[in-house]
Amino acid sequence: MEKSQLKWYGLERDHRIYLYRDLEKNFIEIFRKLRNGEIPETEEEESSNIPDLRILMLEFGKERIKESRTEDRFLIRFYNLRSELDRIINLYFERVSGFGAFAGKLLDDMDPCALFRELPSIMGDGPNKKIIESIALTGKKLCDLRGELVTFMSEEVKIIMPNVTTIAGTELALDLLSAGKGLQHLAEFPASTIQVLGAEKAFFKHLKTGSPPPKHGVMFKLPHLTGLPKGQRGKYARSAASKIAIAARADYLGSTIDSVKMKNDLEARLKKIRGSGSSRARPGRNTSRQG
Amino acid sequence: MEKSQLKWYGLERDHRIYLYRDLEKNFIEIFRKLRNGEIPETEEEESSNIPDLRILMLEFGKERIKESRTEDRFLIRFYNLRSELDRIINLYFERVSGFGAFAGKLLDDMDPCALFRELPSIMGDGPNKKIIESIALTGKKLCDLRGELVTFMSEEVKIIMPNVTTIAGTELALDLLSAGKGLQHLAEFPASTIQVLGAEKAFFKHLKTGSPPPKHGVMFKLPHLTGLPKGQRGKYARSAASKIAIAARADYLGSTIDSVKMKNDLEARLKKIRGSGSSRARPGRNTSRQG
Repeated sequence: MEKSQLKWYGLERDHRIYLYRDLEKNFIEIFRKLRNGEIPETEEEESSNIPDLRILMLEFGKERIKESRTEDRFLIRFYNLRSELDRIINLYFERVSGFGAFAGKLLDDMDPCALFRELPSIMGDGPNKKIIESIALTGKKLCDLRGELVTFMSEEVKIIMPNVTTIAGTELALDLLSAGKGLQHLAEFPASTIQVLGAEKAFFKHLKTGSPPPKHGVMFKLPHLTGLPKGQRGKYARSAASKIAIAARADYLGSTIDSVKMKNDLEARLKKIRGSGSSRARPGRNTSRQG
Repeated sequence: MEKSQLKWYGLERDHRIYLYRDLEKNFIEIFRKLRNGEIPETEEEESSNIPDLRILMLEFGKERIKESRTEDRFLIRFYNLRSELDRIINLYFERVSGFGAFAGKLLDDMDPCALFRELPSIMGDGPNKKIIESIALTGKKLCDLRGELVTFMSEEVKIIMPNVTTIAGTELALDLLSAGKGLQHLAEFPASTIQVLGAEKAFFKHLKTGSPPPKHGVMFKLPHLTGLPKGQRGKYARSAASKIAIAARADYLGSTIDSVKMKNDLEARLKKIRGSGSSRARPGRNTSRQG
């Protein structure tokens, strides 16, 4: 290694270039080691024909982008697709339910997915039979996909955020992941931020005008929260948020914690809050707020 | 029939009620004749047990609503569904194209339907493979339905409005049907109304503020119209509108006219307008208007 210089494409020694062997095939591995300051475990071969480093670098860049988009971000995309699907199903339903007039039936108050299933039999035979069947089938496919997405996401979130899911349930875990824009952010937030995620508007109104701070945003879906009187919900949301903050950090780092115990502790806390009754709620302050 | 009174449920004669025979089964036929002032061709039978006329009347009403919703109105519903489908496909595409980031590819400028076809191969294998395939399939189904609707409607419009379609083409015929809210309306409109259908906003602005009147609304899709200089489009649209007005009346009444000759006449007129050139366009007036 005397008088030699490490380069992206190999070594330069005595004014000659020694390329890393198989640079064009193994460039991702080679570049990764170079980035980490290691010398790639590959031999060099003398060559004057340097491959187009620009193209290799671009490919390496794409690869790195791909890696930084981890499963939690993918899950957020699926989450957004499901929300859009809800909207799409309603738009589609609005148009399709109008067909009911031709069958002398009011279909507007039917469940969308039930309508798509039953549409062909409602409309009966006629010159439009085939196209009606196709329309119904497309609606059914949209509903099916929605179901598949819900199932898939509730399985995925258990893998990605096992601890948070144990404490908060799959639905809330997904909402938190989406509102926090990723597991890394969620792990970095203090508990107080997690408590008001999704209530940003009310929170900034509080900072600006001094209105009461929100007690919860997406945390509204916390199990048992709605069972509490309004004056005691903030207390419960705060306890839960601190446990979720710890759980999110463990999930992000992949470390093991006893999330079942945390869940039980939270339930014990819930009982205590319930037991303390409305006597502890500060009158005229905590009663009329909405998160 | 002396001393007898015709009623919806039968005859009243000498203070006794004679129901129409099979009133509960044949009420639609019986009621229809009564509405037309005819006496139903059915015997009467003496009975004191009058069926629930309210229910029969409701059923009769539904039947009449069904009949008044004829195929042209059904076609308008399909037309609206297709427009909604365009919007839905774009909404769906927006969410799905975002997945490209995970494959290191920019998919936002792809054709939506091509993206849905190719998505599984773009994304490759992975834990999300199955759900990605389902998402792609749903997108494909939306695109397929759109194609089916277009084919179906272009066939239907030829049956419902054969003459208008010959002159205006399937696309414009559908637009006119939808903008006119049914074949009956279209048959009743004067040619001048047909000419500006779909340009209501510009037309009422013209009436209110004296701005130049619109030359065309949906008629913008008239064959060869865009090939003309702007100053001559109004002339051609006016000629076409008068022919379409005649054709729409024939279509509504189901009478036969030589629409092919009308089409040829219109094309001859087009040549004449083209031939007259810009010399006949009134300067400073017809040149800068948009419908």
